[in-house]
Amino acid sequence: MAEILVLGAGVMGSAFSVLLADCGHKVHLVGTHLDTDLIRGILRDRIHEKLKVKLPDQIVASSHDQLGEVLSDNADLIVYGVNSAGVLWANQQLGRLLKKSTPILMLTKGLTVRDNTIRILPQIVRQDMLDFGLNDIPVAAVAGPCIAAELAVRRESSVVITHPDPELLQWLLSFLNAPYCHARPSNDIVGVEVCAALKNFYAIGVGYADGRLKLKGIAPNGAGMNNLSAGLFVQAMIEIKYLLDYMGGEAESAYGLAGAGDLYVTCQAGRNSRIGRLLGAGLCYREAKNKHMPEDTIEGAELALTITPTLRRLMDQKQIDRAAIPLGITIIDAICDNIPMQIPWDRFYNTV
Amino acid sequence: MAEILVLGAGVMGSAFSVLLADCGHKVHLVGTHLDTDLIRGILRDRIHEKLKVKLPDQIVASSHDQLGEVLSDNADLIVYGVNSAGVLWANQQLGRLLKKSTPILMLTKGLTVRDNTIRILPQIVRQDMLDFGLNDIPVAAVAGPCIAAELAVRRESSVVITHPDPELLQWLLSFLNAPYCHARPSNDIVGVEVCAALKNFYAIGVGYADGRLKLKGIAPNGAGMNNLSAGLFVQAMIEIKYLLDYMGGEAESAYGLAGAGDLYVTCQAGRNSRIGRLLGAGLCYREAKNKHMPEDTIEGAELALTITPTLRRLMDQKQIDRAAIPLGITIIDAICDNIPMQIPWDRFYNTV
Repeated sequence: MAEILVLGAGVMGSAFSVLLADCGHKVHLVGTHLDTDLIRGILRDRIHEKLKVKLPDQIVASSHDQLGEVLSDNADLIVYGVNSAGVLWANQQLGRLLKKSTPILMLTKGLTVRDNTIRILPQIVRQDMLDFGLNDIPVAAVAGPCIAAELAVRRESSVVITHPDPELLQWLLSFLNAPYCHARPSNDIVGVEVCAALKNFYAIGVGYADGRLKLKGIAPNGAGMNNLSAGLFVQAMIEIKYLLDYMGGEAESAYGLAGAGDLYVTCQAGRNSRIGRLLGAGLCYREAKNKHMPEDTIEGAELALTITPTLRRLMDQKQIDRAAIPLGITIIDAICDNIPMQIPWDRFYNTV
Repeated sequence: MAEILVLGAGVMGSAFSVLLADCGHKVHLVGTHLDTDLIRGILRDRIHEKLKVKLPDQIVASSHDQLGEVLSDNADLIVYGVNSAGVLWANQQLGRLLKKSTPILMLTKGLTVRDNTIRILPQIVRQDMLDFGLNDIPVAAVAGPCIAAELAVRRESSVVITHPDPELLQWLLSFLNAPYCHARPSNDIVGVEVCAALKNFYAIGVGYADGRLKLKGIAPNGAGMNNLSAGLFVQAMIEIKYLLDYMGGEAESAYGLAGAGDLYVTCQAGRNSRIGRLLGAGLCYREAKNKHMPEDTIEGAELALTITPTLRRLMDQKQIDRAAIPLGITIIDAICDNIPMQIPWDRFYNTV
């Protein structure tokens, strides 16, 4: 049994806490300032209001102002369950409080820009921790096709745990032995993390197909638009693989659980594919966002807004080949410049 | 404008005829003995009863006993639109009648066993044509995510045209310039054809997830079983890539339109995923087939029945590694030995 602190009580942090509790660990689930109502609900009747499940007793819930008390020297592992916008905050909180280099496992997915370079989040965490004199914190990550609501009710889920050090990987895997969770190791942390971030972005592109279907309807002969979905899915995979390669990841990650698997699941449901549907139905991004999803954080769109200036500079400098990411450019133009989405078929499938 | 003979008036042969007609070609659509009613319907009011579309006037429909008359020396291209069980019949018919080595383009997908070896269908066609003294017939093939009903109503569809000779490929691609059809060349005919056949087989495995969902229902918190689907999809891709590699194809085909793309579309609908759903819902194959799909040809199951004895021999001889295809073995055991389907998770994702 380990003692694990999960920071961030949103759906993914809390669902992962259920998994950890099922694996016999003691879990401290600490909410951020955005999670106040969720923590209150858990303390009241143990129900997580967004996940709509009762949390096991081994999960002890606390609010963010209790982080200092909760973060005892006994924590074996710290899990980042914050969203991508919360990573810098989490680094500051933990950096100040941590007295030793406790390993970190990140559920948070995303890419960010620092020093004019596109970076994966585990690199950012490690770098920030250096400022607090924490030099050797191992930062691993979880990815793969794992919708939180399904994990929380113990439905079969497959995940990748990634870190360059095989010993650390084996140690982390030993924590996750619930029969419904199929965890596999990968030492390609760059590739896995690039996939985990880009799948949200590209799910917007694949979602376009369902929007076209909504616009044009089922044909009189019963035909839908599955050929279109599949074509967009393939192009998304081709571009994820290209970008992952640019970032230094391994192609295999693009075709495995973190890439194809997580893209597959993200295309079935969720906010990223929903905004894609709205774009496919003929709306421009601002109209779609403001009218239909004003309160929602759309991680794939946030990613586009974050990395586009850098990505465009890299394309201008020919470090990234514009011709290699036509779907990506279409999504970026839609989100960042409000351009109606149109599929540039002639530029697709260059490497098929 | 070319003159093209399409043999087989089922949904795929006829939908492809619509595409060819839209590209300005004259199309002779010749039914097999299984297509008598379909041809009669087309001759009556130009409606294809299964596709539920009106065929363009450039398509001239004929029945199989007219093949000799129709097969003029002017045919530039012959398209195989028969199902996999009809290939040997088509070879005999055409071999007897053909006076020159007219190129063949195969829509028919499948694998077969000849000389104790698993073979792709274009190899079988070429070999059979040799018996008729037709030595140099180029046999190309079409694959990719292309549901016939969608193609027939001119919805965006992406296909791969495959043949080792780049000049022939360019010539074939020049026939297919309809704005809704996005055709790309591939010189990996083995890889593409293995994907095209195996996607039906593995769609049975992915369909299992929807069957489990039907059995267990949506969870009280709204959770479905998308994590399960995605995990099975990834494992299917891993195994397709392994088997394609064994057959001499290129990995890239597994991740492109013919592999991931066609698997994606095949998992959304159709008879293969339907039988998978029945297996996932707890039925054994014979019960599922006999009670629920007695009249249906399930191409993925037919493939399993065709190649399993050879595949098992190859595993016994260690030419194919049993550990590399755990999902495939599970599907085979279900179909060939009526064993209830259970997912061997511990053996999954070996190469992720």
